[in-house]
Amino acid sequence: MKRRKINQSEPGKENLRFMALGGLGEIGKNMYVIEYLPADEMIVIDSGLKFPDSELPGIDYTVPDISYLEANKSKIQALIITHGHEDHIGGLPYVLPKLDVPVYGTKLTIGLIQNKFLDDVPYYKPKLNEIKSGDTIEIGTSFEIRFMAVAHSIPEGVALSINTPLGRIVHTGDFKLDSTPIDGRVTDFGAFAEEGDKGVLLLCSDSTNAERAGFTPSERVISSTLDTLFRLYRTRRIIISSFASNIHRIQQVADAAAKFNRKISFLGRSMIRNVELAREIECIKIDSKLIVPIEDIWKYSDNQLVIITTGSQGEPFSGLVTMSRGENKLITLGEHDVVFLLASVIPGNEKLVNNTINRLFSQGCDVVYEKERNIHVSGHASSEELKIMLNITKPQYFVPIHGEYKHLVRHSQLAQEVGIPSKNIFLMNNGDILTFSRNSPPKLHGKVQSGAVIIDGNAAGTIRSEVLKERREIAEDGVLVVAAAIDDRGRLLAPVAIETQGVFISDDSKGVFKELYAAAEYAINELSGKRVNIDVIKKTIKAKIRDVLRKRNSSFAVILPVISIQSSGYYDDTSTFEKDFF
Amino acid sequence: MKRRKINQSEPGKENLRFMALGGLGEIGKNMYVIEYLPADEMIVIDSGLKFPDSELPGIDYTVPDISYLEANKSKIQALIITHGHEDHIGGLPYVLPKLDVPVYGTKLTIGLIQNKFLDDVPYYKPKLNEIKSGDTIEIGTSFEIRFMAVAHSIPEGVALSINTPLGRIVHTGDFKLDSTPIDGRVTDFGAFAEEGDKGVLLLCSDSTNAERAGFTPSERVISSTLDTLFRLYRTRRIIISSFASNIHRIQQVADAAAKFNRKISFLGRSMIRNVELAREIECIKIDSKLIVPIEDIWKYSDNQLVIITTGSQGEPFSGLVTMSRGENKLITLGEHDVVFLLASVIPGNEKLVNNTINRLFSQGCDVVYEKERNIHVSGHASSEELKIMLNITKPQYFVPIHGEYKHLVRHSQLAQEVGIPSKNIFLMNNGDILTFSRNSPPKLHGKVQSGAVIIDGNAAGTIRSEVLKERREIAEDGVLVVAAAIDDRGRLLAPVAIETQGVFISDDSKGVFKELYAAAEYAINELSGKRVNIDVIKKTIKAKIRDVLRKRNSSFAVILPVISIQSSGYYDDTSTFEKDFF
Repeated sequence: MKRRKINQSEPGKENLRFMALGGLGEIGKNMYVIEYLPADEMIVIDSGLKFPDSELPGIDYTVPDISYLEANKSKIQALIITHGHEDHIGGLPYVLPKLDVPVYGTKLTIGLIQNKFLDDVPYYKPKLNEIKSGDTIEIGTSFEIRFMAVAHSIPEGVALSINTPLGRIVHTGDFKLDSTPIDGRVTDFGAFAEEGDKGVLLLCSDSTNAERAGFTPSERVISSTLDTLFRLYRTRRIIISSFASNIHRIQQVADAAAKFNRKISFLGRSMIRNVELAREIECIKIDSKLIVPIEDIWKYSDNQLVIITTGSQGEPFSGLVTMSRGENKLITLGEHDVVFLLASVIPGNEKLVNNTINRLFSQGCDVVYEKERNIHVSGHASSEELKIMLNITKPQYFVPIHGEYKHLVRHSQLAQEVGIPSKNIFLMNNGDILTFSRNSPPKLHGKVQSGAVIIDGNAAGTIRSEVLKERREIAEDGVLVVAAAIDDRGRLLAPVAIETQGVFISDDSKGVFKELYAAAEYAINELSGKRVNIDVIKKTIKAKIRDVLRKRNSSFAVILPVISIQSSGYYDDTSTFEKDFF
Repeated sequence: MKRRKINQSEPGKENLRFMALGGLGEIGKNMYVIEYLPADEMIVIDSGLKFPDSELPGIDYTVPDISYLEANKSKIQALIITHGHEDHIGGLPYVLPKLDVPVYGTKLTIGLIQNKFLDDVPYYKPKLNEIKSGDTIEIGTSFEIRFMAVAHSIPEGVALSINTPLGRIVHTGDFKLDSTPIDGRVTDFGAFAEEGDKGVLLLCSDSTNAERAGFTPSERVISSTLDTLFRLYRTRRIIISSFASNIHRIQQVADAAAKFNRKISFLGRSMIRNVELAREIECIKIDSKLIVPIEDIWKYSDNQLVIITTGSQGEPFSGLVTMSRGENKLITLGEHDVVFLLASVIPGNEKLVNNTINRLFSQGCDVVYEKERNIHVSGHASSEELKIMLNITKPQYFVPIHGEYKHLVRHSQLAQEVGIPSKNIFLMNNGDILTFSRNSPPKLHGKVQSGAVIIDGNAAGTIRSEVLKERREIAEDGVLVVAAAIDDRGRLLAPVAIETQGVFISDDSKGVFKELYAAAEYAINELSGKRVNIDVIKKTIKAKIRDVLRKRNSSFAVILPVISIQSSGYYDDTSTFEKDFF
């Protein structure tokens, strides 16, 4: 291998580094970096997005801050994608045009990425390289990567064994040990065992379900659940909501449809796109005769139809949610319908999903959802599986990845149970640097810049964190605006104006407003003629207004003074004054 | 009974009505009304609050809109409280001073209400009447109420059998059929069966767990879980978080503490208050020698202590949450601590609780929570228990209460399973009126005013729903304020000022702001001198600003123009002008 050429005469400098730019202490925006310093080479694994929670009002999603990668662009040899879920590929439209590095992934993963770029970033043509599980490829002069099949809730997932001059890093990606997956492509125990026998320096393993005891059930259990449900609701029209990426589940629904002599119809853009792609590359097999365009469903009776759609997470404009509101143009729900929610609720979406279920019931249809029946299985390994992975790969060092802090802690406890000493386990945060050297134990020290870049509407950019803080504040108690126009001696030009947005002033509001006007004008008059900074005026107004609100116990609204200053021409130092003093 | 005196010669008018002002289609703010029209008498059952969800930013809680009760104040004979949970008593400080009617409840319930009024409404002295389970009392001339013991997650809960001239209404309150409750006070099957035998016109039953199969486990299972955990963590300091109202669970913790030779210390005002009250009325038995004031815990080693505190729902200022932030003045968590969360997560609080768990782990302590061990049992009956209740009481008609719409639907399905015809089951919403007459089947028709009164900070009042809408809007995209001062001919007195709060303007912000100033000034200048309403100026500014934002694809911020108008004295119609035209 080429890597043998690398200077090994300076062992102290021959460092290998592992870090995450996303995915630690959170579920989402996965991005991991492996760096071999002597060769100035690095590889990046995954490039995901993260859906927002209630703490980021109005944000579409976030992607990792890649300042560190941008500064080291020339060193990046490859961006390896483990599978096609949004938390692993969703950041690419933002990341890839900036880095412009070659991307590696399996056929379905590459297809999903291609669709994404056609839709979102048509001007950029990503450099996509298809690999197969079982392949071993060399990347740069320092890395040799073996792709190993793993079962997950999307087909064609891979784990990586990355051989470096300092040893092997096994990165599991997202996985479970499903022994009977729908496509028969089981997690490749043999490959993991081989790597384990060769010697694994570091294991980085999926922590999502570290809290769950036992084994995650096989995806195949869904088939028998579907059989039971199709039998039970044999006279009704069946509407199924699932993740558009869970191709195997769609296969199982199609199989059930065929078995019970129903046609299947797809609703929702991502659902239609994904099924098209999966059929094209033969990831899924559905007889064309089985498929009915959604416009033609009126030709069939209730018991001849299955409609499969998006919206399992209560997404506002999805098929299911518009149906639950009675606003879907193609499907009106009623007593002759039953809806199956074939997906678990992603933490944070509980309220949206719950509201959707309540609304579905109010449309008169029956609803079958997680609470009552085993109609979803997770795509991630539970604790017994995680221990097997640790035992097969026998790593010297261990870093739990892909999880909130509690998941990482639980996973590190599992590792200790199977005999990895706690000093060999590293609980890392995004940005932390784990450095391996040839002659000394690895060390966790130093940090690279990490964080979230917020994608808001069509505008992508690093949003100031204060902007979000400001949104939270005004969301809580509203905003009270005090507008004043003053001349360049600080004298009021017109009465102060006050407006509110989202502010709750209790019944005696008129009295309060009178006091508020008086307080603001008093603050300005008091300072008029004095040489004070404009911020002092704002601060004084804020303090006086706050006093009134506090005394009246009415509101904790954000107070926002807005001052316009007349440029009278009396003084020629107006420009200074505007910015600074008068 | 007195009721026999009532005029029965006009059977058509002899109507009995049942309705809810809160508690249907929601978990929270329970309030039910039973009304006997010929006597102009009504009773009210419970008066709860509801904690807000993410759709009500910055709101403390809501209580039922009681306009209907205020308008019929003189008819209300009694306010009956089934038990002391906040969703049944939390609305009293708002409701009771307005209605001033006698309140009935068991000893603990009355004690909790008393504490609430001493704290929140010291100026009002509620008319409290203590009843015992087993009691039968007459209320007004139309109602005879039997109080029946029920097991629940707070001691001394009661169900009601309300005998009226038209028949019996059994109202379960919150219950489960725990056969081994901590205080030995089981749900009084005998009483329910007796009422069933006499004949029940209407059953109103708790739907909270209608989705759950089987039986809810006994509260007693917690004891053995605690045994196991106390043994497992025998060297550590144990911190336990639980509902302050779950007196039985506090008893079990105290028993475990005694067994394992630990002292118990209480942290958090509501925890200390409730334990005090419960000990006083002998609802709970804890040896005084076992209790250590929180200030003295430093005298004991880790393995000699149990600290029990609030915060199981991630409440921002609770004991547990301040500990998780490392901000608690009395307790600093570390490796020698373990935290047990002895409570399930109330829907809507998932994120808060999850964040708290992650932060607790980051303090270095271990955390035991619901995901892994059976450390919480529900206080509500599951579907098998609900069917037993239906079979024991054998009601002619059934109304599922206390639940979201999906729970009510599920409960009505259970009722059909045990043989109640669907035409005898009424799925009601808050405000719906169910009317019983002597000679015709009951009918669901008409509505009384119902809704939510929002309690925000210390200000209570019916908040304008627009205020909440405004908050949601600014929470999503921030607010952009345009302040302009004009003279009474609409001419600008000073340059327009613009300020933002929570607005995301992408990188080219300077260019955008320049355009924004120009757009606002253009709008004002264009209208200057014309006789237009002030709202027209605001509208025009909004439109121009929106155009710029849309074109730049930058932001969907709420635009808030604030106009101050100079009263120059040139015209004496200034006052008209300010409000209206110029």
